[in-house]
Amino acid sequence: MDPDAVAKAFVEHYYSTFDANRAALSNLYQEGSMLTFEGQKIQGSPSIVAKLTSLPFQQCQHSITTVDCQPSGPAGGMLVFVSGNLQLAGEQHALKFSQMFHLMPTPQGSFYVLNDIFRLNYA
Amino acid sequence: MDPDAVAKAFVEHYYSTFDANRAALSNLYQEGSMLTFEGQKIQGSPSIVAKLTSLPFQQCQHSITTVDCQPSGPAGGMLVFVSGNLQLAGEQHALKFSQMFHLMPTPQGSFYVLNDIFRLNYA
Repeated sequence: MDPDAVAKAFVEHYYSTFDANRAALSNLYQEGSMLTFEGQKIQGSPSIVAKLTSLPFQQCQHSITTVDCQPSGPAGGMLVFVSGNLQLAGEQHALKFSQMFHLMPTPQGSFYVLNDIFRLNYA
Repeated sequence: MDPDAVAKAFVEHYYSTFDANRAALSNLYQEGSMLTFEGQKIQGSPSIVAKLTSLPFQQCQHSITTVDCQPSGPAGGMLVFVSGNLQLAGEQHALKFSQMFHLMPTPQGSFYVLNDIFRLNYA
């Protein structure tokens, strides 16, 4: 299993799900998952999805600029570091963002998001 | 021990050391440490420090905009996510960057950098 290919597939799945139906991201988080969104700390899949679905925009489209990944240690986790652009419906300019995910393996052979940190990069 | 305070202290120490004497960063990395610098993957403290000291500028100054941190799991690690500006000597404009560190505890009660991912944020 090529970690870079896994990271790229995760990132494509995550943002296409975000842009199509944010509530469906709940499958990617668990009870111990943590999100820090623009400095606000949120824990647990239900609270994380409540935050993401309550963001003050309806339609958006992420486009990815870079994806970097590294193994995070002997527990089989993977760190994924993303930069990209976020285009909100009705806005002229896209917003730049950086985001990191810490993916941990599930017993079913998939991954869930243990850590998620999101920041807009203001120009 | 407040994780946010530890993260902030680490970040201040890391960038002040980087700006004063990059070679001294070798103490913060170990043999298993990984750096991904603008997409280039480097492993081990000697190779990482060789990369950092060979960057094509002499003097620089980092200024930090945001620091976020989360515990990375039961092994006692900590994820630190940084955004900031990098001013190179003789350049008119600062460069924006994002960087993440995965810190792991040492038996001596300190931390070392297991994972380090650095990206410039192009405007």
